[in-house]
Amino acid sequence: MSGTSFRSIVALSGGVGGARFADGLAKVAGSALTVVVNTGDDFVHWGLTVSPDVDTVMYTLGGLSDDERGWGLRGETFETLERVRAFGGPAWFMLGDRDLATHLTRTDALARGETLTQITARLVKSVGIAPTILPMSDGPCRTMIHTAEDGVLSFQEWFVGRRAAPRVRRVEFVGNPPATHQVLDALRSADLVVIGPSNPFVSIDPILSRPGVSDALVGRRVIAVSPIVGGRAVKGPLAEMIPSLVGDAPSAAAVANYYGELLAGFVVEHGDEAAISGLRVHATDTIMKTRADRERLAAEVLSFAESLR
Amino acid sequence: MSGTSFRSIVALSGGVGGARFADGLAKVAGSALTVVVNTGDDFVHWGLTVSPDVDTVMYTLGGLSDDERGWGLRGETFETLERVRAFGGPAWFMLGDRDLATHLTRTDALARGETLTQITARLVKSVGIAPTILPMSDGPCRTMIHTAEDGVLSFQEWFVGRRAAPRVRRVEFVGNPPATHQVLDALRSADLVVIGPSNPFVSIDPILSRPGVSDALVGRRVIAVSPIVGGRAVKGPLAEMIPSLVGDAPSAAAVANYYGELLAGFVVEHGDEAAISGLRVHATDTIMKTRADRERLAAEVLSFAESLR
Repeated sequence: MSGTSFRSIVALSGGVGGARFADGLAKVAGSALTVVVNTGDDFVHWGLTVSPDVDTVMYTLGGLSDDERGWGLRGETFETLERVRAFGGPAWFMLGDRDLATHLTRTDALARGETLTQITARLVKSVGIAPTILPMSDGPCRTMIHTAEDGVLSFQEWFVGRRAAPRVRRVEFVGNPPATHQVLDALRSADLVVIGPSNPFVSIDPILSRPGVSDALVGRRVIAVSPIVGGRAVKGPLAEMIPSLVGDAPSAAAVANYYGELLAGFVVEHGDEAAISGLRVHATDTIMKTRADRERLAAEVLSFAESLR
Repeated sequence: MSGTSFRSIVALSGGVGGARFADGLAKVAGSALTVVVNTGDDFVHWGLTVSPDVDTVMYTLGGLSDDERGWGLRGETFETLERVRAFGGPAWFMLGDRDLATHLTRTDALARGETLTQITARLVKSVGIAPTILPMSDGPCRTMIHTAEDGVLSFQEWFVGRRAAPRVRRVEFVGNPPATHQVLDALRSADLVVIGPSNPFVSIDPILSRPGVSDALVGRRVIAVSPIVGGRAVKGPLAEMIPSLVGDAPSAAAVANYYGELLAGFVVEHGDEAAISGLRVHATDTIMKTRADRERLAAEVLSFAESLR
């Protein structure tokens, strides 16, 4: 059933960019794919546990996401939010009515003693998704943004609440829970690990820094897709973070340097390959405008990975 | 501002019938009215604390209720419910999207240490309601229905989940929290207490049996509006419960007998007064089809109460 010779592929993903790429991989690799998702952005809102990246991956692979708006569910409504606003409650995070069902089901399941991994598997199954989707950890690891202007903010306070405007001085992960055994098993048995076009500092680093992950990656073939195209981030605040956090101008090369020896190969936009040395590079169209783009890019990435065997 | 000479009126209420009558009282008495509401039907659903009678009173007095459907909010949608159903979650209780904002706000506030009384006051204020609405207690008192066919069920499991079909052998209140001091203060300072046309066994008894309420009612003028009209309940399962629980045929007189010496006066439907003795009775049109009916009935009830001075 799989359009690749890899038997077991693990993709590491944050939100939208990583999710769209994972959707392409899912079309090519089906159930041979496991997506390990950042949970550093998870937070509690209206008393509910919200896992934005896990849900973005689930909605995207389930064909439920609103591709035009770029977040959330297609056909979403906001009746609950408007009433919460009328009650004077917090309305800065756009939780839609359909989306709420996910957070209610998850929060209730966690309160009954299920793990985030278990409830995610249950939700993913009911959506009818072939790949496995794994939160990076079942314990709390919270990405905190140390800003130049506004002190320390949780990721969502910074990213959504302040529209990523305060300059980032440092990223901190509060809480150091291990990767789940499901994540470690998937990594150990993977014949390919692909880091999606997600933000290295706030989407991929939380995964890579989970205890157990570095060891599980020893001997794995790891490649990455650049989230920087022509010096700009395809989505999100990455371009501004690179100079602040690693002292380089924003570029695909800076991302390659940041991942360093972890990578066996790197996929970049046409034109970005010239600045990269000491690493096998594949240059192509990496911007995924359509669903067909996702699958085409995924197939190319897998062919490139096969050429590295 | 008040269309009555009573300075302080307390109404005891369950759900729809009591709420509609309280709405009429609110139109006549404004902020001189305090509604004390049954919380024996409260339950936890999707991890949220739901207070159906408190919400029905709040929505009704706030002009937000769906009078045609007879429950919930006007213009309500059910997007969250449909997704919860798709996830295989419980969908037997119709929580609407707008309604959810109430339960989310309440549950979050309770988790932060607010009392049910405090969060109710906050919600009521934001809806712009002049009367005070008080849950009977801040502690859990759960109405359990001992049935002939299905064992012991929580009120909502019996009433909504089984459509009140299993025959009622006994009503039990599990948990015996006291009335709040706000309820007791309101009762002690009331110059009139009106029991609305609610179910005596499952809506009013939970209030009357809270520790402190009996003492606070000593010396108060208490009148009631019959929930039984011509031998039938205006709404709900009361008519079937009367024979089973007190051995009488369903009638306004049976309700009067049940309340006994608590009552100084009783308001019944035209024609139901003949069977009642030993009690001052006012007969009128008690069925509230329109909002004007509510106000007319409330004004009549208050005039009748004044005649008992």
